[in-house]
Amino acid sequence: MAIGEPVSLLDGLATTRAIRRFHPDPLPPDHLSTILFSATRAPTGSNRQNFRFMVLTDGPNARRAKSILGESFRSGWAKKVETDGYRSGSGEAPNSPKARMARTMQFFVDNFEATPAVVLACIKTRHDSLIDGASIYPACQNLLLAARALGYGGVLTGWHREVEAELRELLEIPSEYAIAATIPLGRPLGNHGPVRRRPAKELVFDDSWATPAPWLTEPSGTQHTAAGPSENG
Amino acid sequence: MAIGEPVSLLDGLATTRAIRRFHPDPLPPDHLSTILFSATRAPTGSNRQNFRFMVLTDGPNARRAKSILGESFRSGWAKKVETDGYRSGSGEAPNSPKARMARTMQFFVDNFEATPAVVLACIKTRHDSLIDGASIYPACQNLLLAARALGYGGVLTGWHREVEAELRELLEIPSEYAIAATIPLGRPLGNHGPVRRRPAKELVFDDSWATPAPWLTEPSGTQHTAAGPSENG
Repeated sequence: MAIGEPVSLLDGLATTRAIRRFHPDPLPPDHLSTILFSATRAPTGSNRQNFRFMVLTDGPNARRAKSILGESFRSGWAKKVETDGYRSGSGEAPNSPKARMARTMQFFVDNFEATPAVVLACIKTRHDSLIDGASIYPACQNLLLAARALGYGGVLTGWHREVEAELRELLEIPSEYAIAATIPLGRPLGNHGPVRRRPAKELVFDDSWATPAPWLTEPSGTQHTAAGPSENG
Repeated sequence: MAIGEPVSLLDGLATTRAIRRFHPDPLPPDHLSTILFSATRAPTGSNRQNFRFMVLTDGPNARRAKSILGESFRSGWAKKVETDGYRSGSGEAPNSPKARMARTMQFFVDNFEATPAVVLACIKTRHDSLIDGASIYPACQNLLLAARALGYGGVLTGWHREVEAELRELLEIPSEYAIAATIPLGRPLGNHGPVRRRPAKELVFDDSWATPAPWLTEPSGTQHTAAGPSENG
């Protein structure tokens, strides 16, 4: 996708996928501005707007934070390789989706420090509860969609958790804010395939549980995949 | 906004607001399909796609579920009127934003049963934790944005919680799925103003906490509001 190519809202929703390999070029300030502005227009519970976005580009804290996060991402990925069996089963075949995913992830974590922009999405909350997510993850999705609109990409990750104490101290994040996501952003490197999800029929029910919606159709050319690694073995 | 009017991705992100007053007309099947399909294209942690969307329109369970939810919404709103002081302070002036919001909310809860479509967004999870929200609320945002693209609107609510046991029994929702949101959808009734949020400068920090991002600007004409009721008294 070329920078500046116009994207319709519906097309954007259907074509925004996780991007983990980035050109090291910085994002121009006006693009970064549009992406973050779009995030802040998202809804929050009772319009409290209790979210804050910490943007890390090339400042002194940013460099240190990226290094802390890079170590955490590498260690997180190393663990996931073991627990999710990336080196067994279909992961052994170099052209399997699993093996390709493993190479992308390895590149991602090995080059984390060169990510042009990393956004920490924070939310003021006293609890660790699902419903609080309703006031921060819509904004994260807006952020990723706005990035897509301008020819960038990113991915929503939770691998800051192992180094959260260190990050909080460095960035002086107040204790009443939780870090809900770490989102690296940049211009995609290489070719990126289409969004692949399970067939919508498996995910949308009509009037009762597990009853497929008779009115549901998918656009022609929709590509599918089974659920992620943990449920596939 | 007219049905079918094309919307760019960036414009959609900046102009999608909560809609709580609906025409009672049903959504055409192809529009409902596009809205739900768009929701299912959202990301989930490790692409596990552990979300399910229960769509309630005019089936027998839908009618009963809307009635159960309607009672819960009315009781939830009645409590909020008291706790958030909708009848005191600026809420006493009939043209204040607070009083207008109160009238919209009263209409919303009084007419809940006539909402054309209600979507229960469910997620398979063993915990009640913030991070699980990363696998369901991006999809909820996609759903609301897709509705906007087609001239509909909705709002993400959590007022199913008081009647969750009853809903689960009626709809046979398995115990391993949490209901993360109840989202009413329909064609907006009347005029709806712009999205109003806090100035983006208050929400986006650069390199350290509470340091406004120097590169951040807002499009001209951006409208603002302070944070929601609880922080305003």
